[in-house]
Amino acid sequence: MRAGEVSVALPAAADAGVYFIGVIRTPWTRRGECPKRGSLDGPECSIVVDPLWAAALTDIGAHARLQVLYWMHLSRRDLVLQTPIRTGRTTGTFALRSPVRPNPIASSVVALAGVKGTTLFVRGLDCLDGTPLIDLKPDRGSPSA
Amino acid sequence: MRAGEVSVALPAAADAGVYFIGVIRTPWTRRGECPKRGSLDGPECSIVVDPLWAAALTDIGAHARLQVLYWMHLSRRDLVLQTPIRTGRTTGTFALRSPVRPNPIASSVVALAGVKGTTLFVRGLDCLDGTPLIDLKPDRGSPSA
Repeated sequence: MRAGEVSVALPAAADAGVYFIGVIRTPWTRRGECPKRGSLDGPECSIVVDPLWAAALTDIGAHARLQVLYWMHLSRRDLVLQTPIRTGRTTGTFALRSPVRPNPIASSVVALAGVKGTTLFVRGLDCLDGTPLIDLKPDRGSPSA
Repeated sequence: MRAGEVSVALPAAADAGVYFIGVIRTPWTRRGECPKRGSLDGPECSIVVDPLWAAALTDIGAHARLQVLYWMHLSRRDLVLQTPIRTGRTTGTFALRSPVRPNPIASSVVALAGVKGTTLFVRGLDCLDGTPLIDLKPDRGSPSA
């Protein structure tokens, strides 16, 4: 922990369960390599959806931009105050988009470049290779199917 | 289930656990009453954060817009194809923003109107009263703290 950071004791039990529905493949294998924020003209990454959910991808190609939710599986969950290296300013977890949070769920908007079987090719991610996927939706700004 | 809808057998176990970190208070107590999409000039709603996470709200007032993640606790999770009443067109779950999805996590952007203790007053939600909160972050477009 860095100066000013504060942790709490996490609740004894979870309130709901998340299914990992696929895996995200990116060029970044260590945290320090990940871009601070994904760019829609960044490198192509792939999202490999588990075959169980194949039918749920029907018509996904109609959307140019998708919202991707993923689980930041390596992040600790117990910090309420954090001191990002970048700013050196101690700030509440909910006032930061840091991966460290009670529920380590990230939300990214990506450009869909293609679909092959249950694999999507996208640009705009910034997460580690091997990150678990938890949801895909049309981006809010995208026309509805 | 409606015509064309298809369900799958859900995995036997969850892969990760979510903590409910607070509760959302809205004017809508039945699903039919909820607006289809929240509006930033809609009614003021409140987000009551559990006291355990109070310190994590530090500096949140610096952000005019927040991203709110919540758990749609009443939604079934097993449909891969859905036929929304509105369109009558059978579509894959990941090509819809329907509450029915493997991980029933919703993402809304809200305007922050005020903070009192661990309660936030916001506009832009469209969920049922009593919906469990799972995350708060500065909106992507908002300046970083």
